[in-house]
Formats: sequence, structure tokens, C-alpha cells
Amino acid sequence: MKLKQMLTDFFNEDIGDYDVTTDHLFNEHDRSELMITAKESGIFCGESIIYEGYTLLDDTMHIELLVRDGENITPGDAIAYITGPINTLLKGERVILNMIQRLSGIATTTAQAVENLNDHHIRISDTRKTTPGLRMLEKYAVRVGGGVNHRLRLDDAVLIKDNHIAFFGSIQKAIHQIRRQIGHMIKIEVEIDDKEQLLKAIEADVDVIMIDNTDITTITDWVKLIPDSITIELSGGITPEDLSQYRGLPIDIISMGYLTHHIQALDLSATHQPIKERV
Amino acid sequence: MKLKQMLTDFFNEDIGDYDVTTDHLFNEHDRSELMITAKESGIFCGESIIYEGYTLLDDTMHIELLVRDGENITPGDAIAYITGPINTLLKGERVILNMIQRLSGIATTTAQAVENLNDHHIRISDTRKTTPGLRMLEKYAVRVGGGVNHRLRLDDAVLIKDNHIAFFGSIQKAIHQIRRQIGHMIKIEVEIDDKEQLLKAIEADVDVIMIDNTDITTITDWVKLIPDSITIELSGGITPEDLSQYRGLPIDIISMGYLTHHIQALDLSATHQPIKERV
Amino acid sequence: MKLKQMLTDFFNEDIGDYDVTTDHLFNEHDRSELMITAKESGIFCGESIIYEGYTLLDDTMHIELLVRDGENITPGDAIAYITGPINTLLKGERVILNMIQRLSGIATTTAQAVENLNDHHIRISDTRKTTPGLRMLEKYAVRVGGGVNHRLRLDDAVLIKDNHIAFFGSIQKAIHQIRRQIGHMIKIEVEIDDKEQLLKAIEADVDVIMIDNTDITTITDWVKLIPDSITIELSGGITPEDLSQYRGLPIDIISMGYLTHHIQALDLSATHQPIKERV
Amino acid sequence: MKLKQMLTDFFNEDIGDYDVTTDHLFNEHDRSELMITAKESGIFCGESIIYEGYTLLDDTMHIELLVRDGENITPGDAIAYITGPINTLLKGERVILNMIQRLSGIATTTAQAVENLNDHHIRISDTRKTTPGLRMLEKYAVRVGGGVNHRLRLDDAVLIKDNHIAFFGSIQKAIHQIRRQIGHMIKIEVEIDDKEQLLKAIEADVDVIMIDNTDITTITDWVKLIPDSITIELSGGITPEDLSQYRGLPIDIISMGYLTHHIQALDLSATHQPIKERV
Amino acid sequence: MKLKQMLTDFFNEDIGDYDVTTDHLFNEHDRSELMITAKESGIFCGESIIYEGYTLLDDTMHIELLVRDGENITPGDAIAYITGPINTLLKGERVILNMIQRLSGIATTTAQAVENLNDHHIRISDTRKTTPGLRMLEKYAVRVGGGVNHRLRLDDAVLIKDNHIAFFGSIQKAIHQIRRQIGHMIKIEVEIDDKEQLLKAIEADVDVIMIDNTDITTITDWVKLIPDSITIELSGGITPEDLSQYRGLPIDIISMGYLTHHIQALDLSATHQPIKERV
Amino acid sequence: MKLKQMLTDFFNEDIGDYDVTTDHLFNEHDRSELMITAKESGIFCGESIIYEGYTLLDDTMHIELLVRDGENITPGDAIAYITGPINTLLKGERVILNMIQRLSGIATTTAQAVENLNDHHIRISDTRKTTPGLRMLEKYAVRVGGGVNHRLRLDDAVLIKDNHIAFFGSIQKAIHQIRRQIGHMIKIEVEIDDKEQLLKAIEADVDVIMIDNTDITTITDWVKLIPDSITIELSGGITPEDLSQYRGLPIDIISMGYLTHHIQALDLSATHQPIKERV
Repeated sequence: MKLKQMLTDFFNEDIGDYDVTTDHLFNEHDRSELMITAKESGIFCGESIIYEGYTLLDDTMHIELLVRDGENITPGDAIAYITGPINTLLKGERVILNMIQRLSGIATTTAQAVENLNDHHIRISDTRKTTPGLRMLEKYAVRVGGGVNHRLRLDDAVLIKDNHIAFFGSIQKAIHQIRRQIGHMIKIEVEIDDKEQLLKAIEADVDVIMIDNTDITTITDWVKLIPDSITIELSGGITPEDLSQYRGLPIDIISMGYLTHHIQALDLSATHQPIKERV
Repeated sequence: MKLKQMLTDFFNEDIGDYDVTTDHLFNEHDRSELMITAKESGIFCGESIIYEGYTLLDDTMHIELLVRDGENITPGDAIAYITGPINTLLKGERVILNMIQRLSGIATTTAQAVENLNDHHIRISDTRKTTPGLRMLEKYAVRVGGGVNHRLRLDDAVLIKDNHIAFFGSIQKAIHQIRRQIGHMIKIEVEIDDKEQLLKAIEADVDVIMIDNTDITTITDWVKLIPDSITIELSGGITPEDLSQYRGLPIDIISMGYLTHHIQALDLSATHQPIKERV
Repeated sequence: MKLKQMLTDFFNEDIGDYDVTTDHLFNEHDRSELMITAKESGIFCGESIIYEGYTLLDDTMHIELLVRDGENITPGDAIAYITGPINTLLKGERVILNMIQRLSGIATTTAQAVENLNDHHIRISDTRKTTPGLRMLEKYAVRVGGGVNHRLRLDDAVLIKDNHIAFFGSIQKAIHQIRRQIGHMIKIEVEIDDKEQLLKAIEADVDVIMIDNTDITTITDWVKLIPDSITIELSGGITPEDLSQYRGLPIDIISMGYLTHHIQALDLSATHQPIKERV
Repeated sequence: MKLKQMLTDFFNEDIGDYDVTTDHLFNEHDRSELMITAKESGIFCGESIIYEGYTLLDDTMHIELLVRDGENITPGDAIAYITGPINTLLKGERVILNMIQRLSGIATTTAQAVENLNDHHIRISDTRKTTPGLRMLEKYAVRVGGGVNHRLRLDDAVLIKDNHIAFFGSIQKAIHQIRRQIGHMIKIEVEIDDKEQLLKAIEADVDVIMIDNTDITTITDWVKLIPDSITIELSGGITPEDLSQYRGLPIDIISMGYLTHHIQALDLSATHQPIKERV
Repeated sequence: MKLKQMLTDFFNEDIGDYDVTTDHLFNEHDRSELMITAKESGIFCGESIIYEGYTLLDDTMHIELLVRDGENITPGDAIAYITGPINTLLKGERVILNMIQRLSGIATTTAQAVENLNDHHIRISDTRKTTPGLRMLEKYAVRVGGGVNHRLRLDDAVLIKDNHIAFFGSIQKAIHQIRRQIGHMIKIEVEIDDKEQLLKAIEADVDVIMIDNTDITTITDWVKLIPDSITIELSGGITPEDLSQYRGLPIDIISMGYLTHHIQALDLSATHQPIKERV
Repeated sequence: MKLKQMLTDFFNEDIGDYDVTTDHLFNEHDRSELMITAKESGIFCGESIIYEGYTLLDDTMHIELLVRDGENITPGDAIAYITGPINTLLKGERVILNMIQRLSGIATTTAQAVENLNDHHIRISDTRKTTPGLRMLEKYAVRVGGGVNHRLRLDDAVLIKDNHIAFFGSIQKAIHQIRRQIGHMIKIEVEIDDKEQLLKAIEADVDVIMIDNTDITTITDWVKLIPDSITIELSGGITPEDLSQYRGLPIDIISMGYLTHHIQALDLSATHQPIKERV
């Protein structure tokens, strides 16, 4: 239902009150078929965008999906056929293409990151650096691409960062104060910047330690100190190119703001089957 | 008011029900100051994001803006000081930084495009390829960067594209049929793909001709045929690097999906003035 | 989709939590047929109000539309048959009749204005003086009646009025300052009150000149000075009765706040078939 | 709060994303004063529209109201002074003027109806035939004009009309069935078309009897049969001109769809003080 | 339509972005059947919750309702069968069960109150003490249980309480001032605390007198003074156990905040027909 | 911001279009003071309801809070003084009292549960059985009362229940399949019904084991098998009276649907300082 609400908002934003071009050219009896095809290789993501989007605009639309979320596409692959009034096909095209290109782009980037890393003991995670208004969809695309999600919001997991410590003071006291108040389904992660903080976090037995913006040598040293029961996350400006250097390290997660911050839309196109000229 | 509604949605998306980290560390009496600074050179855009955003979260927040939309910033420049409860400063930070980085990125890219082009007879325009949900703000950022806006929605200007012609048939009949029905405040633009279409569009005396995805030689030929009274727009996958080649051409507009499609967030940071450790 | 949202709001406003009369008289098995008929001659407008309205209330409703938007109706004409639960037929009746009477009234008034004017070189336009909350529908009704729309909102066209000039000073500077910043799809109109302003507007080569509240002799003089390339709009308290005097003038548009300001609802009625089915 | 939500919707409808005229002419430092004055005599209604409307757009606006809801205004009377950014003054003007003209029009029409009737034993009431989306405000304007409100929605009072009887059958059974189920705070009104129905309604001891579309002779006969304990309402296409004929009749209420169906906006104007301050 | 909006909000509240348990276990092809059964005796209320709720989540769901609102259920009774994707069955279960248990609880409590009272001349009414956000549904459940509704909101009936009198002064003046301004479809009720107030209310001929928190002897005395034309309501902390003592008194209504204030959810359960283990 | 949206909805639900009683008795100049006091002992919860609620209705209201969330109150304690227009004081009273009584009731019940249990090694948790639409506030009240929150929504933690296993088959496979896909900030809890499931859950090293509806002897046996690293939660119809029997057991959490399912509103009252009778 959230998806329908989002798509409604996006169509209203793009269309406004009516389509001054197509609504003056066609009427409801002018029907055609729109084919969405791949122009680039990657991982497709967005089947529900196509389905729910065109259904919202006109619930008599006929929609056939040939590719499912997570499947590979290569240039020329047909992704979907949509049949209905030309009017509606054209009106919905920009928003729908825009969204599935973005989501497929995120899924593809994530899949490439997983491939670059090439270490199935370490997983790739997103961050909270998603596009405002699109987090639910962008985090879904990361999962479709083979990554996992970091926390969804500020309310579902604790992440004590440098700023919190700067304000609060003692890292141990901070962990203790939070732990006393939170429920048993919430994990505690601490971002550490130096060895002293690392040791304090280990001593406090947090669930996850985030090693932020640290060189590989230091990381290698630090991870030896961390017991198996604590999850280790690397973070901080990591790009797909950097990933291979972390292969084989005894770490659990590499989180990459990059996945949703540098969105490379995957090139898809919408082609229409033209009808004959009217007389 | 639209801005407040958008920011409310973005904060709800990011925060959820409460901030399980900061709300368990600080109370309303723990106050501090947050300073937003530039880490990269560019054009700033987002003063109302900072002001309305933090005011929405707490209307007693004290906000001082040192840079206005459209001004140049260089690394180290202080952009704003915000004073209030640590809690609220931290809770709002991600959404606000995220938005002003995106918008400043768009303004900066636009300003660079204008500079690359370096021809004040030709203007840089955006397209409808904006991020769903963020069009109003992204189009504002283009204006702040010195560009202009193409149509805001499908309801405020006519753009007859290849697909419309493919379905409808005759370009002249399409123009005629639309012109009969639209108001006098609406412009008609036609996308042309070949010389025949060009000549028909000229004959139909449209307001704007869009030359899409065409090589520079052909463009140079074609523009000679177009009377001064018709605005000429170049379009189709144009990147900032391509712009210099169009310098000096008798055209009016170069529209670039690139401006809002390849958003390079401008690097800004939020630094907090830490208070002393509690005893 | 906007229409559905509007109708939902209108039904909620009219019905509240439930219909304390019909919900205590009938249950879902009491079914009947409602017939909407014309009691007055005019132009019908509102087929989607009937269809979407009753479908929103109950998507199993059977709806047959006999008249399409823009068609003439005369007293006694059947417009639509709707079959379903009596409950829902009665509950939706007030909102739906109210809306289609208003919209048909606007379409009819517009068509009469076009007829009174009787000059197909001049078109009748609406203004921004629409009923708050109903602009999209009222502007649609104007189009259905054979008129055209003036700008939809403050964001899609420039209209420099007396107040703007009063505050800003020079008419030329105002035009120049705006022209520098707006996109190529936006037209500039200037309202002029005297000959000096007229000459300045012509010199600035605006797209449209609005001659506001001016006597026919002066208009006749002024229009001779305006080149063909500039659209001429008459405005200012013009009523349907005034229109014939402008017939034959070399002007393009007559805009009438009257169309949506003095709404004469067209008389339509809803009659129920108490028991037997229609044969 | 409902008023704020309504005004927000109306401003969004009228302004869109920004005001392409004023936002390119003025900045936030260009300040002025707007004066709202009467151009016609009548009853003013809309002080909260002015106050909440301009406050919503900019909460630093200075607003001085010189006339209160329900007071008489005559041409030239100053109604309000609003001081603030020119931008905002101009942007909000259309919606605010539009609304207060409509509401003052309704209040004035209502006051005239009360005066025409000139019988303080009989009150003038509105109906459910209000403008969709504006009922709360239009019903308020009727009260300001000295009228009273009929039911607000279908959920707050029972009104058994001809259609209900046509479907349900017996008038007594209908009253009985409803009375069994409704609460003690809900009144029951029955619309009667003939004497037989009248006698049945009296026998059933309903709270209110509506005599619909009946000639004065018949009304005079019928009212003699109705006991004092039952409220008598006349209804059905009654215009202000018809009212005097009902003066002195032993009836309680005359309900007029006319009040909100034939809205005559009261002429008010907004004048701007171009440069100098008021002294 | 209001119900759909409410259910949408409730599902969004409970589910969030996705169901991290079921969405990782099942896909859309895993289908099953969910059976809702009674575990306790009572009055069922909530057929539209089940139908609209599951239809909102997936409009291909097959839903069979075996019990209608207001019918008795006993332990083991099957209430509904819902067939569809396991995913959706599980995701919607908590909200739907929660709501129908609450509503059936209210209906059952109301029915028990009616039974305890055992005097069909006196009716049981709810109050405004409903759960914020759920009033429409809770008041419906009271009707389903055989009770009636007190006013729905502050806008549909007058209730002058002790606080009003405390502020305003004279009870007669208050009644007079309100009566002058309200419409003829609105009833006036006065809460009385002592005999003097009672006599004033009788003298003012109000519609309803509420005797609040008064002992049975005093009530018995007072009701003798009240004419038949005035409805008598008892109120003030009355529990189901107290009711029998009022049997036979010449009063009309007993209003009980208890009905919606002490909600005893009726125990219902959702059982799934398990499929065979996958290989 | 979510709180403001919720309170706006609640006020609209309770007030409707206006307060037909107070709005006809008082005007904005009639001012007074409302005092909220305790009539029962317990834990107060709802300071932001009072503050935001009355501020929403009128932002000039003067509000003084004497008790903070989580503090003990005893009969007669003054909780807050609110000064402003009588109108607004009366209009907001029902919603605000209703909410703070509910929330204080939840906080008090939670605090009593913690006291009954009297074992600071075991914490009391809520469940998802909250009132639809009020979860954020009810979970807050549980924290205020000294309890902790179970998961907020279906998206922030995994809870594999009997139904999941019934459909899916193997408990190990279910855990494995989910673990492969979820992020590192999400905990996995499994509900177990018998010893075999217990052993499988231990073997799968889940984060939390929920022992549901099990007798104390069996619990005592089972907890010996569970390693310290796994959190143990007891659940299933546990009431405050049952708690003492679990004191001293090596378990971590007792979750009680009771806390939000059997809400005992704490008795608070609003008393007004009456003004003198008007003359």
C-alpha cells in the first residue's frame, strides 16, 4: 500500500492536472502496446513499479512481465509488455521508467560490488544515505542485488557514532545507559576511531563494531582483537574499486553509502508499436 | 508550505518513531551548536532546507545562515550555525545534509555547465528526468545554479515527441489539433528527427523546435533553416564535456537530463561543538 | 488519481461516518436503479464524476453512460443509469449531482459565450478565479464547453499586472528581469492600463498583451498598434452579454472570470426506479 | 486546524511550485502593505481566512483586522491591513480574496433573506447543497449572516425524503425502523408531498416536517393540522424574492439551497501601497 | 472509504516497509488458507474489517464470511475463511484480529449491558470516551451490540455540562443563547447536578436532561418532576453490574463510558492450514 | 511531528466542524485556567500530549507542566495549568484527558508489573498487541513505566512463530533462509513449543528464544539447556499476578500483551476556575 501511495504522489508530480500533449491528441479508444526493453546489462529491479504503476493509472491495463526482480538482463531483452490506451501508456512512461532505471541501477551496482568483493563470508550493506522519500524502494533494490540492509530508521537499531561520544563523553557509559533502556530485539553498534575506543567497545561487548575510514593495515591489526561474537563492519567512503582489498579479511559487513549515493540508472527503454496513420 | 510537507515526510522516513540512540543518551537540557561547513568548492543551495527543516523539528532552534543560495563556497567555509538540543541537532542532521548536498550538487553542476558552454546567448535547461518526489527542489537548484527550467509538468507546455507522431501520424495534423484546444499561455515544442519533420515544424510555426540527438554538422545545417521567431533547443544525452562544441551556434537552449540524473552531491559536513564529559 | 482523491474528500465531507437515514432503512440486498436525466438544455460535463464517484463508493456498481462530455442535452434526456445497492445510490447522489450540475453549468455557460461571441478567430478563456479546491475540474469544464484555459497556476506562465509594476517600477525592467530567469517554455503576458504601457510592452516584445477594463473605442485604437506576433487578450469584468461587441476585432482571446465566478448549475435530476427492473 | 489544512490545499492549488512572476521580481527584503477594502455593501465574513491564510504563508506577517465577522461594510471601508514581503502579499492575494468574497457573499445573501422575510419567528436555514470541499466554511458564513444550519452531514440527523419512501414503502414503518436504532440526540425529519403523508408524519410524532415545493394556500391549510411540538420547515427552490409571502405563517424554518447554490461574491479589493509607509 | 483509509494507516503502522520474517520465507506462489474462529462466546462485529482489510493487502484474496455483524458466536465457530498467499495472510493477521476482537468485545459488552438492564423501554448509549482514532468503528460496534450512539462529535448536538455553567453563569441564559443560534435539527441536552438546575432545565424545555452521578433515590424523586416530552438520560460511571437497579424507572437512556473505556477484547483466533514440508 | 499529525486527527475526529455548545456560549475574550489533577496514584505519562495538544489548538495558550513523564502522582497532585480562551480549553479537554489517562494507565501498569516481578535481572516488555493507530504512544508509555519495547513493526526484527514453521517446515531451514538475507542489525527470535524445537533453535544459535505458554516446571528445565549468549523471553497470556513466580529464573525478558491490551486508564481530572456570572 505504501508503494501505491508513493506512485500516486510521483504521477501527480509529473502529470499535474492533465497531459496537455497526449490528452489533446488521443482518446480512450486509441490503444497500443508499450514494450520495455533493456539497453544495458545488469540486474532488473522494479516489477511492482511497472505493475502497480500502470494499474493505478488504469486498472484495465494488460501487463505482462517477462523478467522478475533479481534476474539478469542484457541489451535487447524484453522486460514487459503493457497494452492499453496510448494516452495512459505515454502519461505513465516517464515516472515508471525513471524508477525502474534507478532501482535496477542500484541492484546492478550492488551485484557488482558483491562480485568485486568475491568473498561470500563478507556481505555488502547499504546505509541511511538514501534518496529522501525513496528509502523503502532503494533498500529493496539493494536486497534484490544481493546486498543486505543496514538499519531502516533511527528507531530500529543503536549506532553510537563519534558525535554521540563527543557530546556524551565516556563510550562505556553511553553503551551502559542505552542498554539499560532498550529492548532485547535491538542491536548496539559502535563506531570506533582509535584503538582505545576499540578496546572499550570490545569490553562493553557490543553487538557490532564499525571500523570507520581506516587503512587496511590498521584494520588487519584491529580485527585480531575482536572476538568472534562481535560482528565487524567496515565503513567510510568505500567504493566498488576498493572492495577487492578487503577480500579474505575476517570481517562480516562492508557498508557502502555509494550504493544509493552514486546512483547509475540502468539504461532501459520504452518502445511503442505505432499504429497506422489516421485518415 | 509544500517544502514543509516534504521535509516532514523525509524526517518521518528517516527517524521513524524515535531515535533509539540519541533519545536514550540526551535530554532536552543538553544543548549544543552544530556548524555546517563546506568540504568542497561549489555553489550552495539549500538555505530554506536548513531553516525550515530544523524549525519543523523544534521551533525554538536558533539558526544563523552565513551563505545564501547561489553563493560560491570553498572548503572550510561556514554555511550555518544551529543551536539547540543535541537530540534534535543529531536527529535532523542526516536528512538536512543529504538534501543540501544534493541540491548544492545540482546547482554546482549547472553552474559548471554554464561555464563550460561559455556562451551567454545559449541557456542551459533541465528536463523532466528529476528524482521522483523531489522535482520542485531539484528544479529550484537548477535555477540557483544559473540554469532555467523546462516544463514543470505535463500540463504546462506541449512537447510533441517521436512517440506522439508515431502513433498519431501527421506532424502538421498533430500540431493543428493541439493548437485548436490549448490556451494562449501554452507553448508548443516539437521534437524533430529528420529534415522533413523540421520543415513541417517550421511551416507549422511552432514555438520551439527540439533537435534531438543530432551531430553537430547536421545541427549547423538545420539551424540555418529555422526563422528567428522559433526557439531552438538541443537535447539528447548531452554531458558537460560536450558543451563547448555548441558555443557560438545560433541556438537558444541546451537541455540536459544530466543535471538531475547524475547528481554529484557536494561534500558538506556537520560538526558539533562537543561539551565537556559529564561526571 | 487526483479525481479519486477529490471525490473521496467530498464524500467524506457529505456523508461523515455513515448515513443515519438510509443505513437504518436498507441493507446491501436492497438494490435498485438510479437514472440521471436532464431537466434543462445545455452541454453535459461530468462523465468521470459519475463513473469514478459511484465506483469509489462500491466497485461492483453497474454504470451505463449515455451522454459523453461535451454533448448537448435537452430536458428529459437520460444521461446515465446506475444499478446497485439503494444505500449507495442514495448516499452518493448529492455529491455527484452537485458536481455534474456545476460542471455542466460551466460548460454550458462557456458554450453560450462562444456562441454569443460568434467569431471563431477569437477564443474564450477562463481565469484563476475558480472555486478553491475545484480548479482542475472547473478548467476541464471550460475546455469541454469549447473555451480554453488561461494559466493553471502561478508557476506555469508570467502575468505582470498593475500591482507588480506599481511595486517594481519600470515595466521594461520587470520584463527584462523575468525574461533572464525563466525557461523557454514560459510565456510572458503584461497587463496594460494606458497607451504608454502598451508601447513599452510592444517594444519589449512580450508574448501576450492583456488589455484590461478598457472601452471598445480605445481597444480599437490600440489593437492597430500591436504587431501580429503578439497575442491580444481582453479582460476585466466581461459578461456573456458584452461579447457581441467584440466580434470582428483583431484580438485573440477574451478571458472571463465570469465563467467560473457566476456558476449557474445546470438542472439535472436523479430519479430512482422504486421496484421493478427496467425492461 | 481544519481551516489550515484547507488553506494549505488552496494555496498549493493556486501557486504550484512557485510564483514565476513575483519570485523573479522581488526578494524577501522588498516589503509593503496590502489593504483589503470593501467595494460593495454587505456583511463581512472571513477574518480567520485573512489571518490564518497569510500566517500560513509567512508567520512573520503583520496582520491588522478592522472589521469582524458579521459586521456591516460599505464601499471604501478598510477591512484589513497586512504588512510583509511583497512576494507573499501578492502570492496569497487571489486565494484569500476569493474566499472572503465568497463567504461575505453568502453572509450578505443570508442577511438579506432574513431581512426580506422580516419575521423573527421564522428562521432561514441552509441545506446540504454547498460547494464540495467548502461546506464547513459556507455553513459558517450562513451563521454569520444570521441564518442557521440544517444538518452538517448525513450522519447527524435523519431526513426521510420521497426517494426513501419510494423504495421502502410505508412512511410509518420507515420512521419506526429508524427510531428503534438511532440515539436520543438525533432528530427525525420527514419530507411530505401530500396530505396523507402529512397525517402519517404527524401521527408518528416526528420532530420536524418538511413541506416541500408546495403552494402557499396548501401550506396554510396544512400547518393548521400540525401540533406545536413539531417543527415545520418549508423547502424547495425558495428564492429571496419569495420570502415575504411566508411572513406571519406559523412555521419555524425556511431552508434555502439558494444561499450556497447561487453564490454572489461580495466585491472586495486588495490595494497595495507601492512605496511609502502609511502614516 | 474512511474504513479503507484507517486500515491502510493501521497496516502501515504494523508492517512498516516489509515483513522481515515472512517476506524472506515465502513467495507469492506459497498459498494457504486462514480460518478465523471464535474461542469465546459473544456478538461478532467486524465483517468489513476482514473483507476490506485483506482486500486492501491483495485484491485477489478469496474471502468467505460465515458470520455477519451482530450474530452470536460460540467457541469453535468458524467466522471466516481467507485463501491467498501465505505472506499476505500472515502480514495482515495481527491488525485484523486485533480490530475484530476489540469491536466484537464492544458489541458483546453492549449486548450484555442490554441484557443486564432487561428493560426495553430504556436504551444503552455510548459516550465520547472512545479510543482516539477509532470512534467511527467503536460507535458502530455499540450499534451492532444493540446500543445506540450518543453524539458523534462536538458539532452535532448541544450538551451543556457543569463546566459550561460554571463559566457562563445562568443555565437559562446559556440555553437561550445557544437556542437562538443553532439549527432546528440539533437537540439540546443539559447535565444537571441539583434540583434547582433540574427545575431550570425543565422550565427551559430542553430536549434531554442528563442526571449525572446521582443516587437511585434522588433519581426516583427527580424523574417524577420531568414531563414526558423531555428525554431522561442517566450517566456517570455506570457499570454493567449497576444496571439492574435502574430497571423499571421511567427513564429513556443510560449512557456508559464503560462500553468503550474498558474494552474486553473477545477472544478469536486465526488458524492456518499448514502445507507439507518442502523438500 | 508524528505526534502533531496524530493529535490533529484526534481533534478533528472529536470536534468535527465546530463545538456547537461552547462556540455559541463564549468568544475569544472569555479566558480562564484549566488545571489537570490526579485522582488516582500512578505514574504520569503525557506531558507532550498536553503541550502539543493545546498548542495545536491555539499557539498563544500558556501551559505550565508540574509533573514530568515517569514521575509518581498521588490523588490531588496538580499536573498542569493551562490558561487561554475557555472555548479552546473546553474543546481540547476530552481528547487530551483521554490520551494522558490511557498513557498514564499503561505506564502505571508497567511500573506495577516491574514491581510485582521484583527482579532487576528480568525486564518487562510489550508486544505488537497495541491499539491500532496508537502504537508509537503506547510503546512510549511502556518505556516511561520502566518496561522495554519488543519490536516496533514487522520490519525491524525477525520473529519466527509457530505459524511460520507450520507453513515452512524445518525450523533450521527457516532460520538459515532468513539469516542469509537479513542485515547484521536485525535479531532473530524463534518461538518454541516443545523441546525438539528448543534444541534446534539452540543449535541454530538464534539471538532470542521465546518460550510461549509453558508451565513453570518445564521452563525451569528448559532454561538450563540454553547458553548464556541466547536471550530468553517468556510469553503468552502472562498477567501482573503471574509475575512473582518467575522471579529468580535465569531468563531475560517477560513480554506481556496485557500492558497494552487491558488498558486501565489512570483517573485524572480537569477542573476549571470558574469566572463570575455575567450580568
